[in-house]
Amino acid sequence: MKNLDGFFKPKSIAVIGASRTPGSLGKMFIESVVKYKYTGQLFPVNPKADQIDGIPCFPTIESLPDQIDLAVILVRKEYALPSLEACGQKGIKNVIVITAGFKEIGGEGIEREEQLKAIAKKYNQQIIGPNCMGLINSEEEFSLNASFSPTEPDSGSVAFISQSGALAVAILEFAKNLRLGFSIFVSMGNKADLKDIDFIEYVAGQDRTKVITLYQESIEDARNFLVKAKEISHQKPIIILKGGKSSAGQKAASSHTGALASSDSATQAMFDQSGVIRVKTIQELCEVSLAFSTQPVPGNDNICVITNAGGPGILATDAISENGLQMARLSENTIQQLKETMPEEASANNPIDMLASAGHEAYAKCTEIALQADNVGAVMVIIVPPPVDTTPRKVIETIAEARKVNPHKPVFFVVMAQHEHEGGELDLVTELSIPIFDYPESAAQAIAAMRKYDKWKRKKTGNIRKFKVDSVKVRTIVDRLKNEKREHLFDEEVREVLMAYGFPTPRFTVAKSAVEAIEFFRKLNSPVVLKIESPKILHKSDTGGVKVNLTSEEEVESAFSEILSNARKVVSDEEIKGVMVQEMIKGGREVALGMFQDPNYGPMIMFGLGGIFVEIFKDIIFRIAPISDVEAQEMIESIKGYAILAGARGEQAVDFDIIVETMLRLSQLITDFEEIIEMDINPLLTSPVAENTKAVDARIRIKL
Amino acid sequence: MKNLDGFFKPKSIAVIGASRTPGSLGKMFIESVVKYKYTGQLFPVNPKADQIDGIPCFPTIESLPDQIDLAVILVRKEYALPSLEACGQKGIKNVIVITAGFKEIGGEGIEREEQLKAIAKKYNQQIIGPNCMGLINSEEEFSLNASFSPTEPDSGSVAFISQSGALAVAILEFAKNLRLGFSIFVSMGNKADLKDIDFIEYVAGQDRTKVITLYQESIEDARNFLVKAKEISHQKPIIILKGGKSSAGQKAASSHTGALASSDSATQAMFDQSGVIRVKTIQELCEVSLAFSTQPVPGNDNICVITNAGGPGILATDAISENGLQMARLSENTIQQLKETMPEEASANNPIDMLASAGHEAYAKCTEIALQADNVGAVMVIIVPPPVDTTPRKVIETIAEARKVNPHKPVFFVVMAQHEHEGGELDLVTELSIPIFDYPESAAQAIAAMRKYDKWKRKKTGNIRKFKVDSVKVRTIVDRLKNEKREHLFDEEVREVLMAYGFPTPRFTVAKSAVEAIEFFRKLNSPVVLKIESPKILHKSDTGGVKVNLTSEEEVESAFSEILSNARKVVSDEEIKGVMVQEMIKGGREVALGMFQDPNYGPMIMFGLGGIFVEIFKDIIFRIAPISDVEAQEMIESIKGYAILAGARGEQAVDFDIIVETMLRLSQLITDFEEIIEMDINPLLTSPVAENTKAVDARIRIKL
Repeated sequence: MKNLDGFFKPKSIAVIGASRTPGSLGKMFIESVVKYKYTGQLFPVNPKADQIDGIPCFPTIESLPDQIDLAVILVRKEYALPSLEACGQKGIKNVIVITAGFKEIGGEGIEREEQLKAIAKKYNQQIIGPNCMGLINSEEEFSLNASFSPTEPDSGSVAFISQSGALAVAILEFAKNLRLGFSIFVSMGNKADLKDIDFIEYVAGQDRTKVITLYQESIEDARNFLVKAKEISHQKPIIILKGGKSSAGQKAASSHTGALASSDSATQAMFDQSGVIRVKTIQELCEVSLAFSTQPVPGNDNICVITNAGGPGILATDAISENGLQMARLSENTIQQLKETMPEEASANNPIDMLASAGHEAYAKCTEIALQADNVGAVMVIIVPPPVDTTPRKVIETIAEARKVNPHKPVFFVVMAQHEHEGGELDLVTELSIPIFDYPESAAQAIAAMRKYDKWKRKKTGNIRKFKVDSVKVRTIVDRLKNEKREHLFDEEVREVLMAYGFPTPRFTVAKSAVEAIEFFRKLNSPVVLKIESPKILHKSDTGGVKVNLTSEEEVESAFSEILSNARKVVSDEEIKGVMVQEMIKGGREVALGMFQDPNYGPMIMFGLGGIFVEIFKDIIFRIAPISDVEAQEMIESIKGYAILAGARGEQAVDFDIIVETMLRLSQLITDFEEIIEMDINPLLTSPVAENTKAVDARIRIKL
Repeated sequence: MKNLDGFFKPKSIAVIGASRTPGSLGKMFIESVVKYKYTGQLFPVNPKADQIDGIPCFPTIESLPDQIDLAVILVRKEYALPSLEACGQKGIKNVIVITAGFKEIGGEGIEREEQLKAIAKKYNQQIIGPNCMGLINSEEEFSLNASFSPTEPDSGSVAFISQSGALAVAILEFAKNLRLGFSIFVSMGNKADLKDIDFIEYVAGQDRTKVITLYQESIEDARNFLVKAKEISHQKPIIILKGGKSSAGQKAASSHTGALASSDSATQAMFDQSGVIRVKTIQELCEVSLAFSTQPVPGNDNICVITNAGGPGILATDAISENGLQMARLSENTIQQLKETMPEEASANNPIDMLASAGHEAYAKCTEIALQADNVGAVMVIIVPPPVDTTPRKVIETIAEARKVNPHKPVFFVVMAQHEHEGGELDLVTELSIPIFDYPESAAQAIAAMRKYDKWKRKKTGNIRKFKVDSVKVRTIVDRLKNEKREHLFDEEVREVLMAYGFPTPRFTVAKSAVEAIEFFRKLNSPVVLKIESPKILHKSDTGGVKVNLTSEEEVESAFSEILSNARKVVSDEEIKGVMVQEMIKGGREVALGMFQDPNYGPMIMFGLGGIFVEIFKDIIFRIAPISDVEAQEMIESIKGYAILAGARGEQAVDFDIIVETMLRLSQLITDFEEIIEMDINPLLTSPVAENTKAVDARIRIKL
C-alpha cells in the first residue's frame, strides 16, 4: 500500500505556476487553497511576482525551502517536465501534475508522458495526473482544497476518486444538492503513476471514509485491481460508475484516455466477482452513496412503505418490485397496531397509506411499529407536503427520535416536491445522518444496491480446487505448436489435452484399418461416430469425412472405406492418420463452455446453454479465471436456461457436480497455460448421470 | 367529445365551502384563485361569512346568481351530495368535487359515489373528482388556478392530467426546476364522471397544447381509450406514467382507487399499439415532455455529440447506445470542417471533444457543421462549466442563433453541474424554447422516446382482414356448451371450430374400426397418430390412449386395438366415440398462439416460440385483439426467437404468411365470439412450406 499522506495531509505545498492574473488557473488554484482554510505553509513559485494575495512568492523551484511535502504543477505543457525534474532535485516526493497535453492528446503527448514517468522513477516521486484537477481533503485538521473545482464539497464519509475532472464537477454539484458529504476527492487524470487501486487502498485505511466511490474509464493492472477490490469490498462498499461500457463508448474512452477499454462482459464479471457495486448514472452514484454512508444495510429484502398519499405509494411499490425487492407482508398483529394509530379510512396494508391528514406523531408511531415487525428489512417513509399542521422536517425529526428503539434497521426518507430546500428538511441529512431522496425510485434503487452488496458479502468464497493433472503433456503440445508456429491444435492434440486435464470425454480410438474400427466398435457395444483423422482436412463434414450413428459392424465397415475414399480425393495418403472411431453420445442437454483472453482481465470463462441459446438468446455468463467451485455453481445457476438443466417440465435434473468439476478443470488448464487464448468445449453433453456427461467437441487456440 | 370549456374557461365560479379560517382548504382555494389573477367572477358560498378577502359571500347555493359556469365543492363529505344536488337545481352544469371520502375509502364511500353519479345524471352535470385537487389553466385570458397545488406551474404547451394529486404536486415541482411549462393541469381524483380520455380529447383540440401527459393508475373503458388514444397520438404525443405496473403495485392501486388494475402485459400492448409513450419515472415524464414541447422529432437515430470534456462525452455515448440510438458516423468532409474550427488536440470524431478551452463561437460553429451533416438526426451539446471566457448561457445563445440555418433538426443541451440556475442558462428554456438537461442520460432517453414515437407514426396500419368463415357452426357449438354448462370444448369440437375458421389443421378421421383406420392411413400414405376419442378421457397419454408415428398397416391395426382395450379399462363403451387417426406432422419449428381475456382490455392475442421458450425464456408478446396483418407480422418479428424462424444457422426460413394468416383467423374468431375466454394453439408447427404448417393441438374454453 502506498502512503499518500504527503498528498492529502501536506504540511507544505509548492505551487509551480501560481499566478496573479485574474481568471488564470494559477490564480484560481491559490484562491481555492486559501478559501478552504489550508493550515499548512503555501509556497507559490512564479519568477515574475513577489507575492500573490499577500503570500510571498519564490522565483524558482531551486529557491524554495527544503522538505516540502507536496508540489502542484500548473505550468504550460512545455515547462511541465523541467518543473518536475527540478522538484525531484529539490527532493519533493509528491507531485500533482495538473498540466494537460500528455497521453490524452496522442503523438508527442505520449512521448511526454513517458518522459514524465522516467523522471518520477529517477527521483522516486509519486505523481497524481497529469491532466487532472487536483484533490480535496475535507478533514478539518488539514482542510485542503488543492483543486480548481468550482464546488466545495461538504465534509462527510464518502471518498470520491475520479478519472474525469469534468464529471467530478458534476458529481460534486449533484452531491451538494443531496447533502452528500465527502472525506476526500481526487481527480486522477491520466494515471501515469498513481492509479485507482492506490487511492482505494489509501482511503480504505481511513476511519473517516465509510464509502468509496469512483468514476472510472480505463482500468490498469486489472487482475490486481480485482483481487484488492474484492478484499476491500469486504470491509467497505466500493461504488463505481464505469464510463465507456458500450462498444461505441469504448471508442470514446480510447480516444479520451488513450487506454484500451475493457469489453463490458469482462467488466461486469469484475463487478460481480469483486463485490464492487456498479451504478449507471451520476445520480445513482450519489444516491447509493448517501444510503450507504448514513444507514445500516437492510437485513432482508422486505420493505415496508409508509406514505401520506396513495400515488407515491404505488410508485414505491412498483419501484421496489422492479429492483428485485419485495413489499413486506405485515402480520395481523402489526396491522392491528397500525390501525389503532390511524384514521379508519387509512390503509394498514403495506404500502401503509396514512392519508393526507397524518401528523408527525402518527408518522413516528407507524414507523416504530413497522421497524418492530420481524420480517421488515427496511422502512421507506414517503412524505408529500403539506401535511396538516406539520412539516417534512418535523416528521423526520420525530421519526428519528422514535426509531432509537430500533437503530439497527434502516429508514429511507422520500420527500416529494421539496419546495423549500433551504433551512428545511435537507439540513437533517447531515444533522441526523439520514438519507432523503426526491423519489421512491431512487430510494428503492439504493436499497437494492445495499442488499446486493450484503448478499455478496455473506456468501461463501468457495475453493479453487486443484486436480491432479498431466501438465507436462500439455506443455509438450503447446511447445510443439509454438515451434511449428501453428495456432490451432489438431483434434488429436485437443483430445490429449482434455484427457491430460481429466475432462470427461467420449471413448475413442484412431483406427488404421476397418478391422481395428470394428474391433473397437465391438468392445464399446454401442453406436459410434467415424471421422477422418487428418490435420489437413478442416471441414470434415463438407468433404464426406464424418459418419454418425453407426449401429452395426457392416455400417462401421462401409463407413470406414467411404470416409477413406472421400479423404483421398482431397489429400494425399501421408496426410491421412487414420479414422477416428468415437463413442456416439446421444440425448442429454447441451451446454457450452469457453474461454477467451480479455485484453484487461486475461483469461475469462464462459458458460451457457449450447446452440441457439448462446447465439440467439445470448444466455451466457462470463467470469474471470480462476474460478472457485462456488463461482462455477453460481455461473450455472445464473443463466435463464438453468431451469432447463434443473429439470423443467418434469424431466430429471442433470448432474451439476460433474459440470462444476469440468469448469474447474477448464479454469485450472487456462490458468496453468497462459498461451491458451481461445478454447471452446461445445457441446458439453450433460446428463442426470455423471458418467454420461461428456465433452463431445472442443477447440483450442494458442498465442504464438 | 365533451365540451370542458365550462371547467377550464369559466366566466363565473361558485366556491361551495369557501372559508375565512387561515390554513383551511376553503381559504387556500380562494387565495389560489385570486393570486393566479382569475379575471372572471368569484362567488364564495359560506353561511357564516359576509365576505372572504373582500369578496362578497353567499349564504347558500340557492342564493347565488343564475348562470354560473362552474362550481367547486370543498365541503365536508357529509355535505357534498346535498351541495351537488343544490348545484343541480341551480342549473350549474360543471362541478369539481374536491371533497374526499368516496370510493377510495371503501364501504359507505362506494355508496356515496354511486349517489353522486345519480345526482349528476339527474341534472345532466359534468363532474371532475371527487377526491381530487382541482385544475389549472395557464392561458393568460383565463388564468385559472382552481386547485390547491402549492406550486404554480409556468405557462407552456404541455397538458398534464393526473389521477393522483400528491404525485401531481411532485411533478409540477420537478417541472418547475426544468422550466417545463404547462397549458392546463387537472387532477381527476376518482373519475366518477369525467375520465382520462375526456380530458385527452379536450386538450387534443387545443392549439396551445402540443404535448399531452398523464399520470394514470386505473384505466376505464380501456378499448375506447385505446382506439381514441391511437387516433390522437397521430396528431400529438401522449406521454403516460403508469402507476401500479407490478403485481404488488397493482395491489396498491386497487386499494388506492378501488379500480381493478390491468395486468402489465395488456398495458404494455396498449402502449405499443396506440403509440402512447410510456415513461417509468416522474423525472422521465418531465424530461421527455420538455424534449417534445421544444424540439422537432429527430429524423433518424444517428446522434452527434459535441462536448468540452471527455468524461461526459463517454457517458453520452454509453447512454445513446443503451437507449437504442447510434452515434452518427461523420463523413471525412464533416470531420475536416470540424478540425478547422478546433485546436489540434481536440477530437473531431463523434463524440466531438472540443476540449475545455472551447468558446461559444467554436461551439456554435461545430454545432452548425454537425447539423449540416446529412446523416445526423440530432445534436446533443454538452457544456461543462466553466468554459474559458464564456458561460453556458452565452454558448447556448450563440448556438441558437447559428442553428437558424437548420431549424428542422433538433438540438438538445446538457449543462453539467448547473451551478447558478438563477438568472442563468435555464431561463433560455422558455426564452428560446430549447431543452436543457442535467445529464446526457436524460437527453438520450428523451431523444429515444421521440424516435420511437416517430417510427410508430410512420408505420403502416395494415388491414384487419376478414376471412370467409362458418360462424354459424361455431355459434352452434358455443351455444351447446352454454346449454350444457360445460366450459371446455371436446377435442372434436375444437377441431370443428378450427376448421370452421379455416385454420391449417392436420388431416384426420375418427375411425370406428381398425379397418376404417387402416383405410384412412392408406389414403394419407404417410405416418399417423392414433388417439382415443372420448370426452371422458382427459389425460389420454396417461391411460395409454395415444400411439404416435405409426408407419405400417400392421402398426395401425395393433395400435387401434391396444388403444381401445386401454380405454375400456377406464370408461364404458358408450363413452368411446372411436379412435382418431391423424396425419403425423414432424419436424418444423414449433410456435405457440394463444388468447386470454384481460379484465380491462378484453381479448388479447399471444405469440411466442413453443415449449421451453415460452415457459422459461418468456419470449412472448401480447396484443389487444383484433390485430391487423402488419401487427401480426410485427408480433412475430418482435420476439427474440424470430431469428430462429427466419433461418438461423443456415436453415431455411419458415413461411411467415401462413403464420400471419393463422393469427388473423384467431383474431377474427375471438372477436366474433366474446364467449371464448381462453384458447391455445400449441404447437402451431411451422415450415418453410405453407402447406406443411399445421395447428397440431388446441384448447378452447368459454365463459358460461
